Amino acid sequence: KIPSRPSSRIVKAGKAHRLSGEEREQLLPNLRAAGWNEVEGRDAIYKELHFKDFNRAFGFMTRVALQAEKLDHHPEWFNVYNKVHITLSTHECAGLSERDINLASFIEQVANTLA
Amino acid sequence: KIPSRPSSRIVKAGKAHRLSGEEREQLLPNLRAAGWNEVEGRDAIYKELHFKDFNRAFGFMTRVALQAEKLDHHPEWFNVYNKVHITLSTHECAGLSERDINLASFIEQVANTLA
Amino acid sequence: KIPSRPSSRIVKAGKAHRLSGEEREQLLPNLRAAGWNEVEGRDAIYKELHFKDFNRAFGFMTRVALQAEKLDHHPEWFNVYNKVHITLSTHECAGLSERDINLASFIEQVANTLA
Amino acid sequence: KIPSRPSSRIVKAGKAHRLSGEEREQLLPNLRAAGWNEVEGRDAIYKELHFKDFNRAFGFMTRVALQAEKLDHHPEWFNVYNKVHITLSTHECAGLSERDINLASFIEQVANTLA
Repeated sequence: KIPSRPSSRIVKAGKAHRLSGEEREQLLPNLRAAGWNEVEGRDAIYKELHFKDFNRAFGFMTRVALQAEKLDHHPEWFNVYNKVHITLSTHECAGLSERDINLASFIEQVANTLA
Repeated sequence: KIPSRPSSRIVKAGKAHRLSGEEREQLLPNLRAAGWNEVEGRDAIYKELHFKDFNRAFGFMTRVALQAEKLDHHPEWFNVYNKVHITLSTHECAGLSERDINLASFIEQVANTLA
Repeated sequence: KIPSRPSSRIVKAGKAHRLSGEEREQLLPNLRAAGWNEVEGRDAIYKELHFKDFNRAFGFMTRVALQAEKLDHHPEWFNVYNKVHITLSTHECAGLSERDINLASFIEQVANTLA
Repeated sequence: KIPSRPSSRIVKAGKAHRLSGEEREQLLPNLRAAGWNEVEGRDAIYKELHFKDFNRAFGFMTRVALQAEKLDHHPEWFNVYNKVHITLSTHECAGLSERDINLASFIEQVANTLA
């Protein structure tokens, strides 16, 4: 068995903090315009995406999974056939952080190539 | 369009360096025992893996891809149906580095679950 | 642009039918023993799977996705980090069919390699 | 353990046959225009694709893998970071068949969304 050595290559740059009121005013209008809604009773955002078929839906999910793993920030998502429903929130700060904005931005970029 | 903000969460911890003679004496015997061979004419290691079917081969590749993207260190690989041939080397130092040892170790761990 | 030609290679072998009482008596005990439960108010089965990390969870999902696409029978599933919650039912017959049993069997086989 | 039952849902519709001269005259010009070349010394076609990054390259590969598994017709491919090199040929008839044309057509469709 090959010994697993601790990788020192990935370092988290600081803790997540919940977005301030000012940050929300600046960032949430863009998200709402792209179809993201705030979740009732929870500091999180939500979007339902529909693709043409399962092939596109799962190809989308794979690209998001690769990015999520890279950022160490993962979505809550539901899929059936061509539908993908995504909730984003940051566990570490129990609410919306910049990490969610970054992942939502990546999701928009990928989804737009598959529309 | 949602503005993409520079993520400051992933930081590469130092440059890759080519493994020293001493490190090779320590690490390469384990790799050879697991089926990895040194490539002729190039400072790299190579292994051929065979799975039971394409489903297992591509499931394996997806797990390695997620890890490669996380580590920002990617394999050179060939696949046809149930076969996956992998070459590991580090572009940054033009030879074998600790990153290759770490990725090979991960590959062994995943492949062993699919044997 | 390369013309897409209709593929005649995949043929669905007959319509799905809802499992009979006798088939359920034969098949559902095995599923229950493996952690699948019948959903209240709906003719469907449900299981919650927990893996060690996201890498394993999404590697699992990719193998199931490949099989689902091959069988043209897709799960309803939810994922967050290492958790995957799966509901199986057959749209065509609005209830449990042999296709769900086959997919559940495949899911068990894949999940067992990642336990 | 859940008993695996033989799936009767996928049926291969006939054997593959090597493309005739007439079929080649009709189909290969389109492929050449899209960057596919015939391989020397072998009845196969080949294309090198370059994406912007590994995320796109592996997202592409996942969509092709899902389709390949569905059609039970798999590519020979090499990947390193953003590059994917693909060879298509049909083992069953030891040369180019309609299956390769169909898979090449699918590949073009997916690659065009990621350009």
